[in-house]
Amino acid sequence: MAGTVSRTSNVGVATGGESSQRRTSRSGYIKAKFGFRNYWYPAIFSRELTDKPVGVRLLGENILIRRVGDRAMAVADQCLHRGVRFSRKPECYTADTITCWYHGFTYSFTDGKLVEILTEPGSSLIGKLALKTYPVSEAKGIVFVFVGDREPGDLAHDVAPNFLDPDLEIDGIRDEVASNWRLGAENGFDTTHIYIHRDSVLVPGNNLALPLGLVPGDLHGISVYGENEPKGVLDHTFENYQPVFEGKIDGQTVARSKGIGNQKIVAREVSIWMPGMLKVDPFPDPSLIQFEWYVPIDGERHMYWRVLGQRVSDTAEADAFHQEFHNRWKSLALHGFNDEDIRAREGMQEFYQHDKAWAQEHLFKPDRCIVEWRKLASRHNRGIQPPANG
Amino acid sequence: MAGTVSRTSNVGVATGGESSQRRTSRSGYIKAKFGFRNYWYPAIFSRELTDKPVGVRLLGENILIRRVGDRAMAVADQCLHRGVRFSRKPECYTADTITCWYHGFTYSFTDGKLVEILTEPGSSLIGKLALKTYPVSEAKGIVFVFVGDREPGDLAHDVAPNFLDPDLEIDGIRDEVASNWRLGAENGFDTTHIYIHRDSVLVPGNNLALPLGLVPGDLHGISVYGENEPKGVLDHTFENYQPVFEGKIDGQTVARSKGIGNQKIVAREVSIWMPGMLKVDPFPDPSLIQFEWYVPIDGERHMYWRVLGQRVSDTAEADAFHQEFHNRWKSLALHGFNDEDIRAREGMQEFYQHDKAWAQEHLFKPDRCIVEWRKLASRHNRGIQPPANG
Amino acid sequence: MAGTVSRTSNVGVATGGESSQRRTSRSGYIKAKFGFRNYWYPAIFSRELTDKPVGVRLLGENILIRRVGDRAMAVADQCLHRGVRFSRKPECYTADTITCWYHGFTYSFTDGKLVEILTEPGSSLIGKLALKTYPVSEAKGIVFVFVGDREPGDLAHDVAPNFLDPDLEIDGIRDEVASNWRLGAENGFDTTHIYIHRDSVLVPGNNLALPLGLVPGDLHGISVYGENEPKGVLDHTFENYQPVFEGKIDGQTVARSKGIGNQKIVAREVSIWMPGMLKVDPFPDPSLIQFEWYVPIDGERHMYWRVLGQRVSDTAEADAFHQEFHNRWKSLALHGFNDEDIRAREGMQEFYQHDKAWAQEHLFKPDRCIVEWRKLASRHNRGIQPPANG
Repeated sequence: MAGTVSRTSNVGVATGGESSQRRTSRSGYIKAKFGFRNYWYPAIFSRELTDKPVGVRLLGENILIRRVGDRAMAVADQCLHRGVRFSRKPECYTADTITCWYHGFTYSFTDGKLVEILTEPGSSLIGKLALKTYPVSEAKGIVFVFVGDREPGDLAHDVAPNFLDPDLEIDGIRDEVASNWRLGAENGFDTTHIYIHRDSVLVPGNNLALPLGLVPGDLHGISVYGENEPKGVLDHTFENYQPVFEGKIDGQTVARSKGIGNQKIVAREVSIWMPGMLKVDPFPDPSLIQFEWYVPIDGERHMYWRVLGQRVSDTAEADAFHQEFHNRWKSLALHGFNDEDIRAREGMQEFYQHDKAWAQEHLFKPDRCIVEWRKLASRHNRGIQPPANG
Repeated sequence: MAGTVSRTSNVGVATGGESSQRRTSRSGYIKAKFGFRNYWYPAIFSRELTDKPVGVRLLGENILIRRVGDRAMAVADQCLHRGVRFSRKPECYTADTITCWYHGFTYSFTDGKLVEILTEPGSSLIGKLALKTYPVSEAKGIVFVFVGDREPGDLAHDVAPNFLDPDLEIDGIRDEVASNWRLGAENGFDTTHIYIHRDSVLVPGNNLALPLGLVPGDLHGISVYGENEPKGVLDHTFENYQPVFEGKIDGQTVARSKGIGNQKIVAREVSIWMPGMLKVDPFPDPSLIQFEWYVPIDGERHMYWRVLGQRVSDTAEADAFHQEFHNRWKSLALHGFNDEDIRAREGMQEFYQHDKAWAQEHLFKPDRCIVEWRKLASRHNRGIQPPANG
Repeated sequence: MAGTVSRTSNVGVATGGESSQRRTSRSGYIKAKFGFRNYWYPAIFSRELTDKPVGVRLLGENILIRRVGDRAMAVADQCLHRGVRFSRKPECYTADTITCWYHGFTYSFTDGKLVEILTEPGSSLIGKLALKTYPVSEAKGIVFVFVGDREPGDLAHDVAPNFLDPDLEIDGIRDEVASNWRLGAENGFDTTHIYIHRDSVLVPGNNLALPLGLVPGDLHGISVYGENEPKGVLDHTFENYQPVFEGKIDGQTVARSKGIGNQKIVAREVSIWMPGMLKVDPFPDPSLIQFEWYVPIDGERHMYWRVLGQRVSDTAEADAFHQEFHNRWKSLALHGFNDEDIRAREGMQEFYQHDKAWAQEHLFKPDRCIVEWRKLASRHNRGIQPPANG
């Protein structure tokens, strides 16, 4: 993982407004209300997918996914004839076709081609129309779909480092959240938002040394990986910040971290990767890594993926991890800690639903990681998704 | 019933786009989101109307209907003073007036004139203001309202042939559907949409010989009646199509009509008439005719009328028909068969709510009847209703 | 209370349209969908406010109110950092600060200044950012907030005469109503809307001589107070109108006031004061005055304040008033009479949500008081509130 490490204490954060230069440098990001195009996105867990097609909505596009033999495949979830979604009443008469419930237009999952029309056998349209097909890749128990029009690249280019490591066992959940996807990404990568987690059951429950806040040091090093793939921004939190365990107003202590004196140190590194995947290493335990996605559904909603990874050396360890995931981490960490993040994002949505908010916000010094992420995403994205029905 | 019969196998259906000529020829139809103006529309069943006024919404206009003596009458359902709808709390102090619940403005149902103001007797406004009145006609147990600004023509010009035949006894139901009215009309007139009905309880329940699909033959005759009134398009389905009882993919039979071997042949002729009334003859039994309307409520909803007609020779037969309608046809045919149509129209609404859909759809050969309907409606309508509050 | 009394029978009410002069003269009013700026507005009852902050929405602005010692204070309910509302999860660590739940930004209620950031102690932003503060005044058990950018004037300038009289004891309720605030104001000041109250339990319940309607007399005197503060319009209803106790159509009596023969005369004077406060004197009893506000929440909703005042000479009388208010007047008068007004305003909203309604309505002679109010408000307001997020 090569990268350019920039160390600077000039965070480019203005107190009242912001420079036109900074606005320009992140204009791509501001336009990306529906996300970035030409990337792999997680669509559904492998365990959720059978040979019965399922409709998902990614970046405003309706997509139908199905297992065809041992492969997952995807086509547009909209009949070319009268525009209805197949997923309203999916009909699959053969292993690799989808038949529209309305007039029997039947398409191949392999190439999207119209192969038959049950109500007009021999129609002259057969072979002449084709659904858009979506490249699909499956890894780590997750079905990924490539949304875009370029040739899809390697999945490894679009996920955080280590996610695909062979010895990393993965498990997780996904939930719909009522906010734009960027608010999800920024909430996750935001170092000082840990403040909202100070009463989380996870802190005493797992003996975490979680501070209330973080003061950036003089040698605040943020690694920006903009040359190779995957592209991302990494905050060396453990080196960069002075942890704050007591909150004071006018010199009086008013709040105290419940993690003072606790043993386990987590989140030594936090990074975010195009097109919007978070990695918190380690978390929620020194033995685990947490990954997150905030996949645009449309401009006002995203699918929030919370995924944990643990290194295992055999099947027994893998099984033990999945058991602990379901018995312990899902409630204690994913819900017990990250449900607060959902409320925070939904709390920002009222303000950021209007594009002018990006010029009205007032960032502070610890937000430098967010600024770097916006700059990276603006400069290095592979395309901006146009609004659905725009 | 005179008409022009055109026989052609050139259905003008493009595979990818469509010619500019075709787009032009149906532009009136595409603009008619709120329906066509200057026609008679069914508003309410006669059995629903008493001397207590009822508010209905037709083509985006709020209309108040009431029985005044032995006549049904209609005025705008909006007080001229402060714009409130009378139907929120209808007050009728005399046989032919409506008094506004807010300030007592009292209007005549006969000419719409302001005849009194209860809160300011002798007001100088009396006699100077008038509500818009709507011509009303009652036939076959249905109250029709003329929406437009021309002199209303004969009701017979705006309904399907035979509907007004003296020996035809009528009964039916009406329901609100969450789709544009055109999707209702096209779903009803669409020959191959029978595919969605293949599992209907009506097919075995009434021994119907209903195929899965229909292949247009070489001599596909569609009668277009564009010169006299009523204007409409008639598809001689029995002569025009080869029924398909088995659905095949790659030569393998994947679906089979449950109507194979059944006795009763229905839907020999299907026709649609301006401003949007369907006739299926016979249906749902060789002894019956089914009529339907899809009356615009606004741009996103329509009132779906399902009406059956049976020829009777005396009152006893008429009574028997109404009894059978309520005991048998309402559940077995109207709900058991046509409720699927409601779901199909609502399934199309997501796509067609955007006008660009009309240019993005891909019609196939059996849709020629729909194309002819669009052309007729574009060329021969009496006016396009402007959007409410447009 | 000085004023200009104009007596004229020329009410400037057109029957079909209206003169361009009149339209111009009330254009400010038509633009004031979000209310008038630079006035004191009631925000919350004193009894509702403790040192736990409460969020309210006035004229489209989110405002946070709190008791700081013995004073009520208010700041913008939106963190300057990421735009979230404090009131989603209010955190107050000291007597005069609000801390944002998201990153610990802490502001003073006194001057709005950012005084601390719990997650980054010593941040360079401290002291450089400040929330908008709102002047707050408390009187008669009500917390008033000044919405605007001018120096606030005397509260007495923005409330109806007598409201602040030392011997007047006040009690009341407030409720959200789904209509624009102007429909509230006009419904309240409208003399002939008493028609909707003819079946109110208050009429027999308090022996009120309430007519069905009111005919303006020749010497219809409406006092317009446009020179000093407060500015308002007063209708001497008792002198100006001939009460109508029987409603007639075609000479036949069709409705009869249930107040005929009753003893108590109320509403001798009805007045409305900038920025939109009603006074009905006396009401709902000869011993009481009713005050009302219709405070814009946004363009489609207002907070409806119903307040009664009674003159008292000592604490015992004051206590007796509050007890009677809760035991008798709240249900018999405020709900029993004025709930009908809520339905009337919501009935107007459908029409007046479109600005063109103001040109389409047809006012009648008794609406002269409303026309005078619109003219006063157009000419003498201190500013028009821009739409939220406009």
